[in-house]
Amino acid sequence: MKPRITLKKIAKEFGVSISTVSKALKDSHEISEDVRERIKAFADFYNYKPNSLALQLRNQKTSVIGVIVPEIVHHFFSQVIDGIEKYANEHGYSVMVCISNESYKKEVSNISVLTNGSIDGLIVSIARETQETQNFKHFEDLIKDDFPLVLFDRIIEDLQCDKVIIDDVGGAFQATEHLIDLGAKRVALLTTQDYISVGALRKEGYLKALVAKGVTIDESLIYRIEDNKNLYEQIEKVINVPNPPDAILAVNEIYAANALKVAKERGLAIPEDIAIIGFTSGLISEFTSPPLTSVVQHGFLMGQHAAELLINRIEHTAPEAFQKEVISTNLKVRKSTINS
Amino acid sequence: MKPRITLKKIAKEFGVSISTVSKALKDSHEISEDVRERIKAFADFYNYKPNSLALQLRNQKTSVIGVIVPEIVHHFFSQVIDGIEKYANEHGYSVMVCISNESYKKEVSNISVLTNGSIDGLIVSIARETQETQNFKHFEDLIKDDFPLVLFDRIIEDLQCDKVIIDDVGGAFQATEHLIDLGAKRVALLTTQDYISVGALRKEGYLKALVAKGVTIDESLIYRIEDNKNLYEQIEKVINVPNPPDAILAVNEIYAANALKVAKERGLAIPEDIAIIGFTSGLISEFTSPPLTSVVQHGFLMGQHAAELLINRIEHTAPEAFQKEVISTNLKVRKSTINS
Repeated sequence: MKPRITLKKIAKEFGVSISTVSKALKDSHEISEDVRERIKAFADFYNYKPNSLALQLRNQKTSVIGVIVPEIVHHFFSQVIDGIEKYANEHGYSVMVCISNESYKKEVSNISVLTNGSIDGLIVSIARETQETQNFKHFEDLIKDDFPLVLFDRIIEDLQCDKVIIDDVGGAFQATEHLIDLGAKRVALLTTQDYISVGALRKEGYLKALVAKGVTIDESLIYRIEDNKNLYEQIEKVINVPNPPDAILAVNEIYAANALKVAKERGLAIPEDIAIIGFTSGLISEFTSPPLTSVVQHGFLMGQHAAELLINRIEHTAPEAFQKEVISTNLKVRKSTINS
Repeated sequence: MKPRITLKKIAKEFGVSISTVSKALKDSHEISEDVRERIKAFADFYNYKPNSLALQLRNQKTSVIGVIVPEIVHHFFSQVIDGIEKYANEHGYSVMVCISNESYKKEVSNISVLTNGSIDGLIVSIARETQETQNFKHFEDLIKDDFPLVLFDRIIEDLQCDKVIIDDVGGAFQATEHLIDLGAKRVALLTTQDYISVGALRKEGYLKALVAKGVTIDESLIYRIEDNKNLYEQIEKVINVPNPPDAILAVNEIYAANALKVAKERGLAIPEDIAIIGFTSGLISEFTSPPLTSVVQHGFLMGQHAAELLINRIEHTAPEAFQKEVISTNLKVRKSTINS
């Protein structure tokens, strides 16, 4: 690590006043070009970031937005990145993407690589491991430093920054209501482990709909899928049993598509014996047979909103208070719930 | 633009000899720390890149690999990125991804953003527009500068750099042969415009198989899909006609999945009336009904190989001659070609 540099140290180094250094860093023409360039080069080399100037200097420097996603082989995150790209490009910014691979350590290292002068601001969806261990110091450090930060989808409520989320509760509520309205008595939920915020929120929407519809909550119908175990086998234990549920809400498309596969192999009629809905922004749902009813997540729109919040923050056109935008979902009804 | 800086100019600026500057930039302890740091800061500010030191300085500086893909909402590219990530991480490198969005101009701008001191080397799959316009100066400049570069999937034969490709010809040959062996007389090809290198290569494999099997080439069975027009409608014109082909080879999964959909809607039995194969590394094929026979592309493996070639080049452990690796495909037979 280089030693931390201050205005005072730079002034001493060049034998000039602190005010001269400050003016040089602001590119003031009161200071001769030669001195200005030398002071700026020196400050640059030591990564000097004067608080009041930090954003301004950053803007001049990169016009690049950093993005960190938990994984890349996931249509939802690809769509969000696509939305970020679109908005950013239209507003003169480039985008650099890093992948945390669900690892806390990689997330920390991604942040350190990206914020080393390459980018003006950062958009992040948090890694599973970070959510699990609840260690958020790397984000708190950015916030302390006034570094523009937007969290999306997997967020941390307590962090003081802009956020964009899907209306996960509302989406799950609407889907569960749809299944009950169609006559389902035993709606199973295929969800993630509880520490994944979106899984927890979708469970909340599911439970609220049961209560609203006067259906008794049956904890044995809530299945928490483990990501490091065989997905198909875990779903077989839900459906390939003596008394399977008559409807399934899955918190993502892969769970839903596998549920459909297991149900068909067990000889169940869809939707007559078992109706299925998945959360998704994916490609699979419209090509399955029958096609899957889906809670559409609008990942592209989410990306656009995240980029808008960030660029407003970078360019000081955002309101001072941090914002939390909620993107509504909608239910795309296909033949896995209504066959007509 | 800052003026181009030379060893000589730096030496003059500091009133020292060229050899002193050179030693300072090499971090030689013959030069006092104070002078060394000032010279390095100055050189850094002016982006001075001495040829012989360039790689060494870069290695010390970033340990980051840049990746440029034409699009992100495409399972194949996601998989390649995942493979690059895996190999890079295991070897102490981080990865930054930019998206060209099929645009020549964005590709040029991505390269300029990434190579501005952020990365040690670059892995690229070339944008459609660049392939179309055949303007490769941005790559030639990198190569002149000895900047480590690996092209994958969509490559330019003439560029002097490392390359990784899928055996597109072999994959298409094997798939076409499979269809003819099953009795197909009129195998249609759903391909891209000819300037897309992978589309052209897959067409070559298709044509070779027809010749090898003694089937007459019928140009009217070769359909070049236009990306900016409605895909479904273009595919309807292939299948929803009086005398449809009895087999289809599609150069990607989306074309294949849509062909399956159109064929089913027209009341054709699959594979009895029409057998279908798609190139893919995607998720859709195993969830369609019937599931699609696929030419498996091994995107993850391709990413690993690209990262290996690049890191060897960065670390000077590669052979001097540039390498071209060819990743074999294999045919994953599902019920869209053999129903038993």
